[in-house]
Amino acid sequence: MGKGSVNEIAFSPDGKILAIASSIGVWLYDVKTFVEIGLLETEEFVRSVAFSPDGSSLASGSGDGTIILWDMKPYIK
Amino acid sequence: MGKGSVNEIAFSPDGKILAIASSIGVWLYDVKTFVEIGLLETEEFVRSVAFSPDGSSLASGSGDGTIILWDMKPYIK
Amino acid sequence: MGKGSVNEIAFSPDGKILAIASSIGVWLYDVKTFVEIGLLETEEFVRSVAFSPDGSSLASGSGDGTIILWDMKPYIK
Amino acid sequence: MGKGSVNEIAFSPDGKILAIASSIGVWLYDVKTFVEIGLLETEEFVRSVAFSPDGSSLASGSGDGTIILWDMKPYIK
Repeated sequence: MGKGSVNEIAFSPDGKILAIASSIGVWLYDVKTFVEIGLLETEEFVRSVAFSPDGSSLASGSGDGTIILWDMKPYIK
Repeated sequence: MGKGSVNEIAFSPDGKILAIASSIGVWLYDVKTFVEIGLLETEEFVRSVAFSPDGSSLASGSGDGTIILWDMKPYIK
Repeated sequence: MGKGSVNEIAFSPDGKILAIASSIGVWLYDVKTFVEIGLLETEEFVRSVAFSPDGSSLASGSGDGTIILWDMKPYIK
Repeated sequence: MGKGSVNEIAFSPDGKILAIASSIGVWLYDVKTFVEIGLLETEEFVRSVAFSPDGSSLASGSGDGTIILWDMKPYIK
C-alpha cells in the first residue's frame, strides 16, 4: 500500500485519518478500515505534514517551498 | 542498544512504549525496564512512525512507500 | 506560496499560526486567512521548529547549530 | 548559541526545557533564562529526540542505532 517514498506520517487528532507525506502528494487513509480515502496531489514531493489541533485542516510543505492548507472536512465522517 | 540507523523515535501516548524507526524495522522498548519487547520487521528502512492518539496502533512509513498499521495491543500490559 | 525549501511545519497550540522551517528562515502564516504575517530570518537554513506548549514562543534550530527562541506575542491576536 | 548541526528540537511537556538533537549530543536549555543547563553527550550524531509524556525522561536516537533513555529529573526544578 502507498505509492511514492514516504517522508512523514501523522494521525489526525481524533485518530480517524492517517496522512502520509510522499513524493507524489499526501495520501489519506481511513484508520478503521485502512482504505485509501484520498490523494492530495502536489507538484513537488511533500516533506512535512501537520494537522491543525482541531483536525479541520492539514498543512503540507514541499521541497520547492510550496505550502498548502487543505480542508479536511470532506474526509471527516 | 538498538540495531540499524535510527530515523525517528516516538513515545506511546501513555509513555509506556518507545518506538524506534530504523533501517531494519520498528523496535519497541518497554520504557520502565528499557527491555526490548519487539521488532516490527519491514522490507525497507522506516522513515517515520506515529502512534494513534489512543495508543492502540502504530503507523510506519518506509522509503519504498509502504505504510503499515501495526496493532499495539499485544505490547500493552 | 512560500519561499525556500521546506523542512518542517508546525501549528501553534491554538491552531492560529502556522510556522514553516525553510532554507531562508521561519515563515509565519495566519491560518484563518492564510496570509503571511512574518518571516523570522536566519543566516542558515532552519531544520526544525517547535512551539512551546503555551504558544508564547517558537524555537528554531539551524544547520549551523544556531538555536533561536522567538517571541510569538507580536503575532498573537 | 548551540554547537553542532541541529537535527531536531523539542520542548518538554511543561515547556520549561528545550532539547536540541545535534551532531555531538543533546543540548538542554532552560527556556525561561535561555541558559544552557546540560549536554547529554553521545558518540554519534543524534537524529531524533522525544520527551516522555510526563517529562521525566528523554529518548535520543543516533545514526549508529544507539537509543538512550535519559533521566530528566536532575534538570527539572
